[in-house]
Amino acid sequence: MLAQKGIPVTLLARTPEEADGLNSCRQHLRLLPGVIFPQGLKITNLVARAVAPARLVILAVPSASFRQNVRWVRDSIAPEAIILSATKGLELPNGRRMSQILKEELPSRLHSGICVLSGPNLAKEIVQGKPASTVIASPDPARAEEAQALLMSSSFRVYTSNDVVGVELGGALKNIIALGAGIADGLNMGDNGKAAFISRGLAEITRLGVAAGAHPMTFAGLAGLGDLIATCASRLSRNRYVGEQLALGKPWPEIQRSMSNVAEGVNTTCAALAMAEKLHVDMPITEATYRVLFEGLPPQQAVAGLMGRPPRAER
Amino acid sequence: MLAQKGIPVTLLARTPEEADGLNSCRQHLRLLPGVIFPQGLKITNLVARAVAPARLVILAVPSASFRQNVRWVRDSIAPEAIILSATKGLELPNGRRMSQILKEELPSRLHSGICVLSGPNLAKEIVQGKPASTVIASPDPARAEEAQALLMSSSFRVYTSNDVVGVELGGALKNIIALGAGIADGLNMGDNGKAAFISRGLAEITRLGVAAGAHPMTFAGLAGLGDLIATCASRLSRNRYVGEQLALGKPWPEIQRSMSNVAEGVNTTCAALAMAEKLHVDMPITEATYRVLFEGLPPQQAVAGLMGRPPRAER
Repeated sequence: MLAQKGIPVTLLARTPEEADGLNSCRQHLRLLPGVIFPQGLKITNLVARAVAPARLVILAVPSASFRQNVRWVRDSIAPEAIILSATKGLELPNGRRMSQILKEELPSRLHSGICVLSGPNLAKEIVQGKPASTVIASPDPARAEEAQALLMSSSFRVYTSNDVVGVELGGALKNIIALGAGIADGLNMGDNGKAAFISRGLAEITRLGVAAGAHPMTFAGLAGLGDLIATCASRLSRNRYVGEQLALGKPWPEIQRSMSNVAEGVNTTCAALAMAEKLHVDMPITEATYRVLFEGLPPQQAVAGLMGRPPRAER
Repeated sequence: MLAQKGIPVTLLARTPEEADGLNSCRQHLRLLPGVIFPQGLKITNLVARAVAPARLVILAVPSASFRQNVRWVRDSIAPEAIILSATKGLELPNGRRMSQILKEELPSRLHSGICVLSGPNLAKEIVQGKPASTVIASPDPARAEEAQALLMSSSFRVYTSNDVVGVELGGALKNIIALGAGIADGLNMGDNGKAAFISRGLAEITRLGVAAGAHPMTFAGLAGLGDLIATCASRLSRNRYVGEQLALGKPWPEIQRSMSNVAEGVNTTCAALAMAEKLHVDMPITEATYRVLFEGLPPQQAVAGLMGRPPRAER
């Protein structure tokens, strides 16, 4: 997207072989076959060449390898650079957010440049030029606006926010609810039940987010609700697939064996429960999901348990 | 639902003929054919017989005839009764909420009994016994809890709220966004774009709600987001149908002629714009929808206009 706007972009490959392969094909054959790189996009495996001249360093790697990638590039980052995390997920076992990892791993002179991006941004649609929106958060509005100005285009609308915690947790925790929405689909629960589940699920992850320091309205925005809707709608969602399989009565270890990729929602369920215990937040949906995944609770019984709790106020 | 729980229920028909017809068929042949009334359900066209002994008076009629129905029954309502509106919509031309109509039409000694109910409650699923949740709001928690205790069952979960304005506006204003989501579907905008549209639409109706006195989180709950998700998912939604037809380039008067029922979202778009002007709230999505409906703005141009606005913060 940036290269298409005429901004010089360098993609950092992990090895010389990967860089050569991407350079000769000018596309990523496995992840986005047929999407040809714009002319302005350079590829290298040399950290200093990619990172040192960059005004904007975008980190878009899986959460599990985020910390080691930060360690790999950190010494080359220029003092005034914006360091933008586009990674959704929490580090196991403690549920660290990516911006927390950045603060732990980067020298403090770089901390003011840390920003995070999250929203309903399925890559396949974005490369087709279909419209999408996202949020970039930073405690410093000026830095978020700098990143916004670079990334915004006629088909990609960027909003700013000062709620770093909310934007990061929204993108991660929504996968727990996507997993449950898959169970609701698999149980043929109907539109009422699924809509209620998503609403109450959002209320639950909002409670956890607020206890962790987030603003509640961030979860009703693009990085929470927006991403959740796109995930639940997408036929490609792995979290939804896991939920549907659970509803059919398959145990999680068996589902896991049949998948080549990890469904982030499963790990996030564990991380969220650890956070909830520490922060004393009641999370009945996440707990029920955990029991279905790891303790063999039948999904029908989980639903009956959630419906049968004592009456209460909505918030 | 109440009769199935063993609670004595009387349905008030408008004419003796309607009462006789419902009594002899024990079902509503046009609206819910095949759904047999429980034994405990009585039917009458005599106001005093239906309303005077009732501890709970449920008003579930179209918004356009709400006021005249209140006038019809008001003299028979017992002093301690709960008067529960289950109607979604706003009265034209001024956008009055149903509880406002109740306050205007009922003697003040009955005002403390006024409650409203809203949520993702497609009737066809509820009569099938599928799980659903809803919200009942009243300024007095004790009255809302009384209604909650009556209506709650193992398949119908009722939450209480003190945000009457938010619960009523959520159920009404969400139809504007459902209409736009239909346009997004018709334009084949993709999951990212539709999710962003729903999120930003919810943010917009939340702004209007807050200016009118609602609590923002109510719109992220069952009566706002929940109802919106169920409406957007339902294949039977008239608002979505209108949106899809608009996206195909059909003008609204032509679509209107092809429909036997009114799509509430069209009237609500007008009522919401009137409210927005009075309360000085910026509603770009509602305005664009109005221009597509009544001023011939091509939907593609409306989307381009929304994407091309100046950059901004999420809230």
